Amino acid sequence: MSEAFDAVDVIAAKRDGRALETASIRWLVDAFTRGVVADEQMAAWAMAVLLNGMDRREIRDLTLAMIDSGERMSFAGLGKVTVDKHSTGGVGDKITLPLAPLVASFGVAVPQLSGRGLGHTGGTLDKLESILGWRADLSTEELRAQLAGVGAAICAAGADLAPADKRLYALRDTTGTVESIPLIASSIMSKKIAEGTASLVLDVKFGSGAFLPQQERAEELARTMVELGTDAGVATVALLTDMSVPLGLTAGNAIEVEESVEVLAGGGPADIRELTLALATEMLALAGLPDADVAAALDDGRAMDAWLGMIRAQGGDPEAPLPVARESHQVLADRDGVLADQDARGVGVAAWRLGAGRARQGDPVQHAAGVRLHAKPGDVVRAGQPIATLLTDDAARIPRALEALEGVHVIAPPGTAIPPRRLIAARIA
Amino acid sequence: MSEAFDAVDVIAAKRDGRALETASIRWLVDAFTRGVVADEQMAAWAMAVLLNGMDRREIRDLTLAMIDSGERMSFAGLGKVTVDKHSTGGVGDKITLPLAPLVASFGVAVPQLSGRGLGHTGGTLDKLESILGWRADLSTEELRAQLAGVGAAICAAGADLAPADKRLYALRDTTGTVESIPLIASSIMSKKIAEGTASLVLDVKFGSGAFLPQQERAEELARTMVELGTDAGVATVALLTDMSVPLGLTAGNAIEVEESVEVLAGGGPADIRELTLALATEMLALAGLPDADVAAALDDGRAMDAWLGMIRAQGGDPEAPLPVARESHQVLADRDGVLADQDARGVGVAAWRLGAGRARQGDPVQHAAGVRLHAKPGDVVRAGQPIATLLTDDAARIPRALEALEGVHVIAPPGTAIPPRRLIAARIA
Repeated sequence: MSEAFDAVDVIAAKRDGRALETASIRWLVDAFTRGVVADEQMAAWAMAVLLNGMDRREIRDLTLAMIDSGERMSFAGLGKVTVDKHSTGGVGDKITLPLAPLVASFGVAVPQLSGRGLGHTGGTLDKLESILGWRADLSTEELRAQLAGVGAAICAAGADLAPADKRLYALRDTTGTVESIPLIASSIMSKKIAEGTASLVLDVKFGSGAFLPQQERAEELARTMVELGTDAGVATVALLTDMSVPLGLTAGNAIEVEESVEVLAGGGPADIRELTLALATEMLALAGLPDADVAAALDDGRAMDAWLGMIRAQGGDPEAPLPVARESHQVLADRDGVLADQDARGVGVAAWRLGAGRARQGDPVQHAAGVRLHAKPGDVVRAGQPIATLLTDDAARIPRALEALEGVHVIAPPGTAIPPRRLIAARIA
Repeated sequence: MSEAFDAVDVIAAKRDGRALETASIRWLVDAFTRGVVADEQMAAWAMAVLLNGMDRREIRDLTLAMIDSGERMSFAGLGKVTVDKHSTGGVGDKITLPLAPLVASFGVAVPQLSGRGLGHTGGTLDKLESILGWRADLSTEELRAQLAGVGAAICAAGADLAPADKRLYALRDTTGTVESIPLIASSIMSKKIAEGTASLVLDVKFGSGAFLPQQERAEELARTMVELGTDAGVATVALLTDMSVPLGLTAGNAIEVEESVEVLAGGGPADIRELTLALATEMLALAGLPDADVAAALDDGRAMDAWLGMIRAQGGDPEAPLPVARESHQVLADRDGVLADQDARGVGVAAWRLGAGRARQGDPVQHAAGVRLHAKPGDVVRAGQPIATLLTDDAARIPRALEALEGVHVIAPPGTAIPPRRLIAARIA
């Protein structure tokens, strides 16, 4: 069959800084899916996009083409408004766990299709799999039934959603073409739009623990995705949030579930509660409930009831004890003072090296592994007291985790005033 | 085996505009040759090089690494100085044919390892293969013996010279990464340096029939290659020459051999003679004979004797009649006037479409096909007289060749003064 375009012409146009016409973008993604455009051609094109950029119309065309490479889900006829949330990922970011049941407790459907962790940021499914019996894989029918019932579902995205994006993402990972805002935005949004949600709240992170550490770059990504959602008919709002220090006091799997349950019980670390409430407020506003009292739903047990229902609906036993690490190692403060900084990336890498994350797709994770923190920036610390506990089933992993923590905990002289951080830096809509 | 570098790090460094260290360039080329660096990684890297460039030291490192991927020939012990010439390719460019025997007639060895044509520019080996019995493939021993004897050899480059360049070139061809001066320069020079020549004259062309039509870009390529040769210990000089109109009056295979023999007999078109003499003078100067009377060697039969010896040494019969095309078609002038322009690219594409060139590597060529021109810019033409003859064994090819010639011959009103072109625009050393 003769092809409508030539791959070299499409690559050369982007190489020379020209905007690609809609038909050529649609052809490229389709021909890549069919194997007519080879991996090396798509890699050269991705590098040209990274260096020369794409305009708003091109990004929309690319996103729609990736959606069209696979199935498109629909939650029409559910009798509920659907709203989804996506985080660009961070260290200690367990927000989805309390957030999905909290929002669902207001009668809104939250279809939270999630991924597994790779590298130093954790994966929501990995965390939930530390709950006895819980399973990530739901059929489309099971997902619909769960959304109609308890309202929230956190499950694995099917392979049929945006398969072109999956192939392109794997290729970008090995060819130095990950850090392109048009490619990141279209990758995230193609999956989210293909899921069929009516509206979407994005948590776009900046700081050392984030995928894009520079705040201006993260803000550009947030704007790009909000425009893209709007252009595709999905009401989209983004919060730009600080990921220079870990969220909460835990980075791992089971220990993050434990902390999430504390938040669902009305307690937990202040930053986790603040971000959960802020994102829930945005989601419910998009769902038509701008005045929902989300704090009350955390404090009076409604969110906890939705959590218990959500976990049980996926086979999990929320009352079963969580796994406990066989080995633990205390990291002690070496002087008296005030904790001035706690680098998120270092904590994330330490948790990953302890076994909480995976080096390669398909590797298993240790559910009990991770880092438990005993102080947050601004807290007073005393020489000889623990500031972090390393948890793992394999003591041989501890030395390299300790290396990752070198310089992470900065202790200022006693009495130093540490200015509080602003967790939510901006709202983009 | 653990690798010294990570491909993604090397790609990302060039993507971010950094100069690559010597060790990482050497590793990349070696790992690509071993199959450890995948095609898609090399393609992304090539696009980053195309868009972000390379400095002089990086280009030298890349060239030396490509040479080290294969064998390196040596003509030491031959008892003669060796000098080589490379042309970036053009329409009607048969200069190698008279040039190699002319230079050899002064006792200098000319090992002219050549390629086959692809696209609208012809290949030297394709032209010579129209001579009955002539063969392009010489063993290293045959090549040495021929250089020691007659002095000139035009033959196919072995697969063992710079194999990394061969793989990279094939990849660049399908990924829109051909038009990069660092990659073009290192590709040409790695093969020429691996051949073991002591000195090298480059004919770098600009104008519509050239690979890089813009004169400034061609000049940049020429300078880059002269620096590269100098850095690698090969005395290198470049002439920058005009390829906006065809060289001589023929573009094809057998008809170009015929025209070359006219030049070797002391006649032939003035531009072919001029460029042959200029390049021969440069080559002989590099070989230590700055005062050689090259015109005399064309006029008194010494160059012709070397030609006859060179063709016979490779099995060819220089007295056998050249093949003649079965079909011919005259293109007539549509008015009286002066030929003002004759676009080289259009003539080259017409010859190619008539069967003189190949669309894909490995395709056969028609030895008798091509375009014979009957006027050069500045010549007076009369309505109804032929300005070009199309030659082919396959009449069905004529209409598309005529399409390629549309607008190629520009006829100005009678009496218009056409300023003469300067064939050699610059000398770069």
